[in-house]
Amino acid sequence: MPPQSSAPVVQTQQSPYARLKPAGAREVSLKGGLLAERYHTNITAGIPAGWQQLWESHTIPNFYVVSGQRPGKVEGPRYIDSDGYKWLESACWAYASTQDSTLKAWIDEFVDVIAAAQEENGYVNTHFMGERKSLRFTDLDHAHEIYCFGHLTQAAVAHHRATGEEKLMGVARRFADLLYQLFGPEGRWGTCGHPEAEMALIELYRETGERRYLELASRMVDARGRKPPVLDGSIYLLDHAPFREQREAVGHAVRALYLYAGATDLYLETGEGALMDTLQALWHDVFTRKVYVTGGLGARYEGEAFGAPYELPNLRAYAETCAAIAGFMWNWRLLHVQPEARYADAMEIALYNGILSGVSLDGTRYFYMNPLESRGGYERQAWFGCACCPPNVHRTLASLPAYLYSVDESTVYVHLYASSELKSTPAYGRSVRVQVETDYPWSGEITLRVSPGRYRLALRIPGWAGSAELRVNGQSVEAAPGSYALLERDWQEDDTVHLSLPMPVQVIRANPRVEEDRFSGALMRGPVVYCVEEVDAPDANLMDLHLPQDTSGLHAAYDSSLLGGVMTISGTALVDTVNRAEQSLYVPASAYVAPQWRECRVRWVPYYAWANRGAGAMKVWFPLSR
Amino acid sequence: MPPQSSAPVVQTQQSPYARLKPAGAREVSLKGGLLAERYHTNITAGIPAGWQQLWESHTIPNFYVVSGQRPGKVEGPRYIDSDGYKWLESACWAYASTQDSTLKAWIDEFVDVIAAAQEENGYVNTHFMGERKSLRFTDLDHAHEIYCFGHLTQAAVAHHRATGEEKLMGVARRFADLLYQLFGPEGRWGTCGHPEAEMALIELYRETGERRYLELASRMVDARGRKPPVLDGSIYLLDHAPFREQREAVGHAVRALYLYAGATDLYLETGEGALMDTLQALWHDVFTRKVYVTGGLGARYEGEAFGAPYELPNLRAYAETCAAIAGFMWNWRLLHVQPEARYADAMEIALYNGILSGVSLDGTRYFYMNPLESRGGYERQAWFGCACCPPNVHRTLASLPAYLYSVDESTVYVHLYASSELKSTPAYGRSVRVQVETDYPWSGEITLRVSPGRYRLALRIPGWAGSAELRVNGQSVEAAPGSYALLERDWQEDDTVHLSLPMPVQVIRANPRVEEDRFSGALMRGPVVYCVEEVDAPDANLMDLHLPQDTSGLHAAYDSSLLGGVMTISGTALVDTVNRAEQSLYVPASAYVAPQWRECRVRWVPYYAWANRGAGAMKVWFPLSR
Repeated sequence: MPPQSSAPVVQTQQSPYARLKPAGAREVSLKGGLLAERYHTNITAGIPAGWQQLWESHTIPNFYVVSGQRPGKVEGPRYIDSDGYKWLESACWAYASTQDSTLKAWIDEFVDVIAAAQEENGYVNTHFMGERKSLRFTDLDHAHEIYCFGHLTQAAVAHHRATGEEKLMGVARRFADLLYQLFGPEGRWGTCGHPEAEMALIELYRETGERRYLELASRMVDARGRKPPVLDGSIYLLDHAPFREQREAVGHAVRALYLYAGATDLYLETGEGALMDTLQALWHDVFTRKVYVTGGLGARYEGEAFGAPYELPNLRAYAETCAAIAGFMWNWRLLHVQPEARYADAMEIALYNGILSGVSLDGTRYFYMNPLESRGGYERQAWFGCACCPPNVHRTLASLPAYLYSVDESTVYVHLYASSELKSTPAYGRSVRVQVETDYPWSGEITLRVSPGRYRLALRIPGWAGSAELRVNGQSVEAAPGSYALLERDWQEDDTVHLSLPMPVQVIRANPRVEEDRFSGALMRGPVVYCVEEVDAPDANLMDLHLPQDTSGLHAAYDSSLLGGVMTISGTALVDTVNRAEQSLYVPASAYVAPQWRECRVRWVPYYAWANRGAGAMKVWFPLSR
Repeated sequence: MPPQSSAPVVQTQQSPYARLKPAGAREVSLKGGLLAERYHTNITAGIPAGWQQLWESHTIPNFYVVSGQRPGKVEGPRYIDSDGYKWLESACWAYASTQDSTLKAWIDEFVDVIAAAQEENGYVNTHFMGERKSLRFTDLDHAHEIYCFGHLTQAAVAHHRATGEEKLMGVARRFADLLYQLFGPEGRWGTCGHPEAEMALIELYRETGERRYLELASRMVDARGRKPPVLDGSIYLLDHAPFREQREAVGHAVRALYLYAGATDLYLETGEGALMDTLQALWHDVFTRKVYVTGGLGARYEGEAFGAPYELPNLRAYAETCAAIAGFMWNWRLLHVQPEARYADAMEIALYNGILSGVSLDGTRYFYMNPLESRGGYERQAWFGCACCPPNVHRTLASLPAYLYSVDESTVYVHLYASSELKSTPAYGRSVRVQVETDYPWSGEITLRVSPGRYRLALRIPGWAGSAELRVNGQSVEAAPGSYALLERDWQEDDTVHLSLPMPVQVIRANPRVEEDRFSGALMRGPVVYCVEEVDAPDANLMDLHLPQDTSGLHAAYDSSLLGGVMTISGTALVDTVNRAEQSLYVPASAYVAPQWRECRVRWVPYYAWANRGAGAMKVWFPLSR
């Protein structure tokens, strides 16, 4: 077996403007708890079911067709190859830690047929081979060719990091070289309507050291906003202004967030201030004005787009699973520019809510949209005609271990808490081990043990925590929520660090500019957002359910038999018993019938676990009863 | 000049299930006030500007091209002919009362070129003549051919009623005969993805007495829901279920409402109970769960569709001008089945708000969407690539006089109040005159004088009125809001009827199930909905403006120099001075910063008149300050 890397997601080892270097999937093992369970279900159920779906949806057969190994026609949408590449990336991350031979056989088969499908000149895209060959690169805005190349390349990088093998890297490099000829400094200006290749090319540069790939990524960022604007079409494509002049998150949310993530990769390599000015303005816009409490992103169905500031409808939240994942990816890159807790906080909120909601508890069914209210009838599906979300879930969950820890010269950062072990951090020539024991996110009690030596331990104190107690060997140490607590010492073998994050049931209020959540509350406990499902409030129409002002009667209890084991919240809510269905839609205030309250026992469950007991109604935000 | 009819919109003279017969545009004259002003501006500015737009947008040139009278190519969208036909219908209604010779010259020119364009077999549609000929009737769902036929026919009926001429009727009949062959009882099942022809065919039947046209309309209603459903596509096309099984208003709002209006025309002729059951269920769904306070209809951008019950976003209200008009047309038909005030109430709310908002005060610029909030930058346009709304405004305003009065055997109904005269009602062989004097909607004082004779006068007492005083020669008579007050007597020459509708400034509350309006109020005075524009609240961000609980300080004042003369409302509102832009999007309730109030002088203006002083921010609903 050739040498393998630690399999990080985003390799910033040589990136001059990266303060942090991520630990990789191979260095970290999940030992138990919710994340471990979701991680293993993804590997044992999600990824295998995905392999089947790739066959049934024509994704893999298309490669056999264009490589001449099977008769038939290429079928499916023009971006279908990317579904396969994302699945392949997932399989590689999973293989990095499991070394599972079945997984390896699938990977090998898929890699072989991709390589067989590639043309001499480096081009490979099943949709634009054969009869559509003449259409290549004629519609960069919509054809997704460079987007598919990006996912091929991400898969190749993951393949290389996981297996040490060069075959898929060779495919990606040959295609990248072709793109460099066409769209590099000597070629024409051009970039893909759907960003993705920026991230991929920079990871390819990191993996190969070949600077042309960085140049090409940079040029793709520069290419945006160079064409005459095409009404709303340009906004959809993020082509309405040069990237460095963009200050508001608009347009297709996934495209936008992939672009922001790619531009952050570019910053990690170049340190260009103008890029960071744009990225900070965009981050501020997204995460203080346009994100759902679940970490969901993209409010609008129309154009799968960001809404205006504070436009966050609940029933019609688009909140595509891919957008929550894209936000997670973007924050991961920003975190390596500068280890600020706000980035990891945003990742954590997205992970436990808007990302995990995207997949069923059995790991094989997916949401495309993640609304914060359902009137019933909305269910996860096994696959989609536009199947971007399922393999995006696969690759995110398969690489989960790689998002827990990073290091710098003198520090080990713990970003996300889960029972886990950081086995070694060869970065900076030092080897450090960290063991974390916790029942997070159900409990905020976290115990850490570290290997001896002089270095800093940096623990994220989540912004959602009202307070935190941090003790080293029983001695209290300052820990401010919303920051990394730094513990620098000459660690001894038996040192124990204990972080205690209080997890009361919290009623969350939205900024009052959010019309849809006005005078309303949502329940959170720790990083987990809760909802009520129809089955847990059998006597009430969720539309008429209110939160009492005094929520001290709400209490949390772990139920191991429910939804794979979840902390539930139970208590008394109030139902407005006025028959609102029979009332006029609009009345003068003088004729307005005030609510008449009936108490009602209600159980809340984690939002991520909804729609696993039928497709009943569900709601996150409830008006406060007065 | 050949004989002309009274030019009613919907001729129910012979309709067996019509309780009422409408007075026509020729029988009614508007004498002054807001409606008269809007009516005359439409004739003097809107319709002439529309004629220019029809030339510039290729709508009329296309007919010259297909008739071989000019070289060139047919251009524009596949439904472009309908824009011309709707304009032509407008011009005919306008001509019915003005007898203006310029208008007549335009009408004549347009009618001539349509006739010249028609093929031998009756077909006329500029988009599907020439090179697209082979595509005729191959895509009924999307091609709009039968929809365009419908508007041709509506124009022909208006032309016949206004001029007595047969030329355009001949064109429409020949096309209708072709459709009867193709889709009538001997033809295949088929109907247009965009309903409209149902109404048109039934009016054609009424105008000609030719029963085949009624049969064809009936068959088009029956054709819906006969195809295998195509996911969401069928809902968009109202093809998800047989019409008589539909109970919820879903799909494209304009298509749906045109279908409901056409089915109501069918009921007026057939009296089929199953149709009315469906229509009543749909009316209940639309007007108690899915209508904006402005009468706007269709909440969603995606698919220009009805939302779920109580889904009524303000900033992203779609509320297409055509949908408010379509609701107006549907209620007009229902009113002739049974004279219930709720139908005329809905017409009035739509007219003074969601329809009039669709056109600028100068009559030449139009809104497609009519949101209830703008953050600024939203303006009316002179025309659109999809220009359905402008000529829909033209035809509605041009026929306004025809919507004021109807009669039955023994009664004259006054539906909408405006200074006006009903000159004669030859229906039932009786001639009755009614004169109305009022400054409605700015004043609720209405004086009526009637011609002598024994008959009933039925006056709509609007549902929005908290109370009403009705006096005949000073003698009080019962008048219950939300009904028609019936005055039966042997009227004498000097009899005076006076209706007094109190018009206090009212704070309107929405059903609390409407998330976006929760704990909020909108101001109305009479049937007019008010809004605040940025220019009238210079010290406040409208997002932070609240209504005080005590609104007794709000007062109305007429300003003749503002917006063509409007009643304004002024008073003190409260601005939350907490810098919400700097605050987190989500905080625990314990950390929620309560508003800090600053008083702020604010002026409200009628919603219909917004965006005539620049494209600033605007808002209808404001949260109540506690």
